[in-house]
Amino acid sequence: MIQMVTPDAFQIHLQKLPRQDETAIETIYALGNGHFGVRASNPLQGNSSHYHGQPGMFVNGFYDLTALSYGENYSGYAQHSQTICQLPDPRFIIFEIDGIRSDETPFDIKVVDKNLDMKTGVLFEIFDIQSPSNKQFRLTMQSFASHADAHLFVINYSVSALNFTGPITIIKQHPYIDQQIQTSVDDMRAAQRDLTLDRTFIDSPIPTMLISTRKSQLALIVAQQALNENTMQPTIVDDLPSYSKTVDLTAGITQSFAFAYAISYPHQLLDTTLTQAEFANSAKQRLTDQSFNELLNASTAQLAQFWQSSDIDLQGDPTLAQGIRFNLFHLYQAAGNDGRTSIAAKGLTGPGYEGHFFWDAEMFMLPFFIYTQPKLAKQLLLYRYQTLPQARQRARELAVKNGVLFPWRTINGEEASSYYPAGTAQVHINADIAYAVDTYVRVTDDQDFLLQYGYEIIVQTARFWLAYGHWATDTAHAGKFVIDDVTGPDEYTAMVNNNYFTNRMAQNNLSIAVKYGKQLRHTHPEKLIALDVTTAEIDQFNRAADNMYLPFDTQRQIKMQDDVSTTKPLWPIKTTPRNQFPLLLHFHPMTIYHYQVNKQADTVMTDFLFPNDQSAQQLRRDFDYYEAITVHDSSLSRAIFGILAHRLHQSDEAYRYFMETVMMDLTNAQGNTGDGIHAANMGGSWLSLIYGFAGLGLEKDSLNLSPELPSEWTSLRFNIWFQNRQLAITITQSAISVKLLSGEPFHFYLNHQPVSLTSDRLISQLL
Amino acid sequence: MIQMVTPDAFQIHLQKLPRQDETAIETIYALGNGHFGVRASNPLQGNSSHYHGQPGMFVNGFYDLTALSYGENYSGYAQHSQTICQLPDPRFIIFEIDGIRSDETPFDIKVVDKNLDMKTGVLFEIFDIQSPSNKQFRLTMQSFASHADAHLFVINYSVSALNFTGPITIIKQHPYIDQQIQTSVDDMRAAQRDLTLDRTFIDSPIPTMLISTRKSQLALIVAQQALNENTMQPTIVDDLPSYSKTVDLTAGITQSFAFAYAISYPHQLLDTTLTQAEFANSAKQRLTDQSFNELLNASTAQLAQFWQSSDIDLQGDPTLAQGIRFNLFHLYQAAGNDGRTSIAAKGLTGPGYEGHFFWDAEMFMLPFFIYTQPKLAKQLLLYRYQTLPQARQRARELAVKNGVLFPWRTINGEEASSYYPAGTAQVHINADIAYAVDTYVRVTDDQDFLLQYGYEIIVQTARFWLAYGHWATDTAHAGKFVIDDVTGPDEYTAMVNNNYFTNRMAQNNLSIAVKYGKQLRHTHPEKLIALDVTTAEIDQFNRAADNMYLPFDTQRQIKMQDDVSTTKPLWPIKTTPRNQFPLLLHFHPMTIYHYQVNKQADTVMTDFLFPNDQSAQQLRRDFDYYEAITVHDSSLSRAIFGILAHRLHQSDEAYRYFMETVMMDLTNAQGNTGDGIHAANMGGSWLSLIYGFAGLGLEKDSLNLSPELPSEWTSLRFNIWFQNRQLAITITQSAISVKLLSGEPFHFYLNHQPVSLTSDRLISQLL
Repeated sequence: MIQMVTPDAFQIHLQKLPRQDETAIETIYALGNGHFGVRASNPLQGNSSHYHGQPGMFVNGFYDLTALSYGENYSGYAQHSQTICQLPDPRFIIFEIDGIRSDETPFDIKVVDKNLDMKTGVLFEIFDIQSPSNKQFRLTMQSFASHADAHLFVINYSVSALNFTGPITIIKQHPYIDQQIQTSVDDMRAAQRDLTLDRTFIDSPIPTMLISTRKSQLALIVAQQALNENTMQPTIVDDLPSYSKTVDLTAGITQSFAFAYAISYPHQLLDTTLTQAEFANSAKQRLTDQSFNELLNASTAQLAQFWQSSDIDLQGDPTLAQGIRFNLFHLYQAAGNDGRTSIAAKGLTGPGYEGHFFWDAEMFMLPFFIYTQPKLAKQLLLYRYQTLPQARQRARELAVKNGVLFPWRTINGEEASSYYPAGTAQVHINADIAYAVDTYVRVTDDQDFLLQYGYEIIVQTARFWLAYGHWATDTAHAGKFVIDDVTGPDEYTAMVNNNYFTNRMAQNNLSIAVKYGKQLRHTHPEKLIALDVTTAEIDQFNRAADNMYLPFDTQRQIKMQDDVSTTKPLWPIKTTPRNQFPLLLHFHPMTIYHYQVNKQADTVMTDFLFPNDQSAQQLRRDFDYYEAITVHDSSLSRAIFGILAHRLHQSDEAYRYFMETVMMDLTNAQGNTGDGIHAANMGGSWLSLIYGFAGLGLEKDSLNLSPELPSEWTSLRFNIWFQNRQLAITITQSAISVKLLSGEPFHFYLNHQPVSLTSDRLISQLL
Repeated sequence: MIQMVTPDAFQIHLQKLPRQDETAIETIYALGNGHFGVRASNPLQGNSSHYHGQPGMFVNGFYDLTALSYGENYSGYAQHSQTICQLPDPRFIIFEIDGIRSDETPFDIKVVDKNLDMKTGVLFEIFDIQSPSNKQFRLTMQSFASHADAHLFVINYSVSALNFTGPITIIKQHPYIDQQIQTSVDDMRAAQRDLTLDRTFIDSPIPTMLISTRKSQLALIVAQQALNENTMQPTIVDDLPSYSKTVDLTAGITQSFAFAYAISYPHQLLDTTLTQAEFANSAKQRLTDQSFNELLNASTAQLAQFWQSSDIDLQGDPTLAQGIRFNLFHLYQAAGNDGRTSIAAKGLTGPGYEGHFFWDAEMFMLPFFIYTQPKLAKQLLLYRYQTLPQARQRARELAVKNGVLFPWRTINGEEASSYYPAGTAQVHINADIAYAVDTYVRVTDDQDFLLQYGYEIIVQTARFWLAYGHWATDTAHAGKFVIDDVTGPDEYTAMVNNNYFTNRMAQNNLSIAVKYGKQLRHTHPEKLIALDVTTAEIDQFNRAADNMYLPFDTQRQIKMQDDVSTTKPLWPIKTTPRNQFPLLLHFHPMTIYHYQVNKQADTVMTDFLFPNDQSAQQLRRDFDYYEAITVHDSSLSRAIFGILAHRLHQSDEAYRYFMETVMMDLTNAQGNTGDGIHAANMGGSWLSLIYGFAGLGLEKDSLNLSPELPSEWTSLRFNIWFQNRQLAITITQSAISVKLLSGEPFHFYLNHQPVSLTSDRLISQLL
């Protein structure tokens, strides 16, 4: 097979990782391509009870519903949870030696090595296996999720004897789908979900089955094909369509078997245009005529394009450099690219958070894609656009007569949160999505997207604020626009009035509705008519934005998290035993809400998102106050504090936060990587580097770079796309250079001073 | 049988009621004695699906548990619901004519008449029944729950032919207990509970069975005995212990069969001192040697004592006069008197609210018992005392390190509320119970109760406030004691800071802890030592009480429901369609909380409970403001507004509220009487009359009467107990007389002027 010549910084070697439990390893080495993800489990286990991992495949958008029950049910409560399905593991294989089958009697299996090559996307693994009859053999696997064909997962199994000569049979079949019992272990508040998947075998030249869900009525086709079909033909084993072959293992001889595994997009089971017969028909083709190497080369070529646009080359700290690439690689593996899916909190690597999409996608992960993979970023925003009807319905369920309300957590666009104070009440999701649309449009200058999709999102979310907020008449807020009964990002405080983050983000949402409304009034007045946006409404947006109430503690001179946040007693963080964290698993909400204690960055998120809002002194006060009351029980917290520490020139602290952010999953720092990656945190590591250390930001109608590297680093190199041009940026301790790789010359800012990239297409400047 | 000579005002005649649905009739005519309650259902239906009523018996304290499930579960959430069991109907009977059994093939049954005699407690009913073979006969039933022996329910069935001569068989057996599926229809938020009861027949001379619950592991014995055993012997029918007899019906001849039905107290099923064998042994006796008439006479005599102490004789409005007695009778039927039970929101008349005890018991019903049945009142308070261990545990679950927190809704003393913002967060329950203890002690002068039980309740609840509240440091509340994150009585506003009602009641709780603490320091210092009450702690109580923050809207000059209540927009009550009420069934909590709208009396409850707190002008402003935003979606609301309207001399309005209060269940005004009576509202009708129109209240160390009758009434007569003396009070339009029926002369107040009852034991005074 192919030789690995990839430098170390693109490889994740098991031996170089801190010792992990098996499920964390399964997550770290999970492979995916935005359409599906496969955990790197022991290939013998399938659904067997002999082994202890958590094998499975997750397909973006393939979920089932379970009824949510409430001790007390109220109108407008989410009635169904949506749970991503844990599907059969395509890596599953059965060995038979001396009449003993590994799926019936456990074979001893030992992991000898694992290595993920992020340049090729290949996971290379060596297992030493021993049959109950003491025959030892070595299994070497190479697996990858194709980045050239979203449907394909490809595996090569190579087997060589270690202590015997004789026959071994390999059987490759779809493992049984039993009753799936899924618990989102990372989200221990969630109830266990019992989902039952049905499977139907489809008459096909290759083993093909249709998997369907019972309540969501979704269907998926999976099929597997041996790539060396001249030596291996489909057959029936145990009444199941399978491949099976017996070979003689002789010392020094390695037998190899390669398979392609195809996974369709999810469809409505009863979609009349896509009946089971058509599914069957579509499966009657071979999956591919290409060899393992041909498939790999195509995928690697596509991946090379990803790295060309998205790589970050950090010199001076090899551990960090590798960790960053690991995060970027996983982000890419996680991101739905079909316009009907987004990025789940755990990517496609585990069952945590039930596979739901949160604000994480827009606020923590999308910036990376906007600047480096703008086409993919557009697909992610299109997902939200596609779910506008559900969001409109949701607003009506809350008796909000105008606009839309996006769900706090969802797969299909409907609200799936069963605890509204830390779910639906996080109405800031609306403004988060609008913020992302604005960022996308400003960075890409994709006016077509704005016109066709983006402005509708911005206007409909802005309308929600006008309807949900109100003009205050009480003395404390007189003449201001206030927004009551919301929950900000910090879920340790709920259902408050005038959450700073929410109000500031709503203000931005209203402002950009005005900004683009005025623009479209000139360029595309028909769009405003189509959306029923009148001059009067734009004036209302404008007035609410201008008069948005932003709570401020005049005594402490800090932004106040909400109208009363600083009046509460402080949670005794230092004297709370470590095993009582995360607090939400150990204390009643009434107890937690009773104190000043933040789960994660909340008010300071606005210091981060709106850097021009405040002076350095204000940032200092906000940072110091909120850092002292934040326990970082959310993985979304540290990246933001790290970026702000950097802005405040607290280098050591910024570096510490950054290290914790980058290395969270590789070191299983939260202890729950086994349930899936912390995708938003991975996005946060990009934010930390590029928004933080490189100081990238939008400024006027262009961008600004205000770089400042930690003293440990020698250089930082990365490319970005900005308004249809690609820039290569190199930052060292003493200088920055910006090179225009493609597109038209333009002007931008370095440390807020205007500079121009002209015909020589390169600027270098001492810092 | 006995002749009825009771005056109309003690009778509830079906013909005189507005037309009701069947289940409401079952509730209105339900019989009980505090230990059990039996709905007045069609006696043929048992658990048959042929009929449409909701037959059943409810035993106070006999409940099962069901696991509560949450989409997101948090530490400290109630894990089990407690649901009162709907037990087999003791009135159930089977007729067999021409080989056709009424439990297998429906017999046509028509209600001819129903009359409840509240003097005797007898429900008299006439049914005309027709068999599928067209044989018509009349069934006359007399039933009563014994007030002399809490275990007994007694029934006489009389049968006479209407259109035939011939045999009829009556079979009296325990109906099957099927899977019970209960939905608390009045509490539509609650999930359906599936309870399974088990039954075991016990070897006994009379048909006896043990009913047991599966999760709470409670057991109950029920047994039935024919009272005319010379003509009817136990036998086996369908393998079930039964009575059965075939008689010939001849024109003009009536055949009668009387039964006593005994219901034990609930016990722990596995209580080693009370095994099934002992149950069996205890059931091996005949239940009684008395005849129907003897049993009835004993019960009636006991009931006479109730009426002697508790009757209210209102002259001038016969409908009201009857309605009041109906309410008092039902209150008495509902009240647990074993020290281990209390009064459920629906009494023992239906499954609504799952049979839970709420603050209703102490705040709406207990005053009636304190003033007219002080021994019973003591039993009700003892129930709370018995559950102090659970309340202590609950406080710890909320990380409150000192004191206790009583559950918002419960049977067994543990919290059963599954929606904490409208459940556990109503921590005012603590102060409500303390207020009731104080009232009981002041009215009865039961110093022994105070010492043994009452002070412990008062101190432990007071301690909760010190631990849950805190000393404010913010400008708005500086130097004040504040209580955040609570819900007041108004469940349309939740999780607020400084709910006026809660803070005022907590202040009272702390004050009485100080008052009695100082008293006991002199009389029983050992009690303070036993409870670990130090002088320092009493000082803390005192300081918190003195500095309790009570929010006030200086602009509107009204008591503010909480720190921000008046800043919210007003709910458009007038334009909300009638079918959208109650709001809680039609709107998401986030929507409801977003507005100023009250489910029920909240802040004005303090105007009611603490009449000396405010001037008439203040009361006027509070009343006007809060009445305008109150929708009375709770049945606890109107009585309070009525009393306050009376105090404000708004006679018409007071009278309208009072009529609605008194007649709520007799007219099924809320439409859900079928699920059970509105017991708290019935208590509210007593409050309206006695606290309202008679103007009874505590004043200094005695009582005050400030009577003012509606112009429609000619007189109001009632007795009360006050500090070991019984008073007979007669109020007319022009005068009041107070007669000392027993006990020592004393001084009290009339219209706040001191008067003395001396040796002539009668005071009459013009008003």
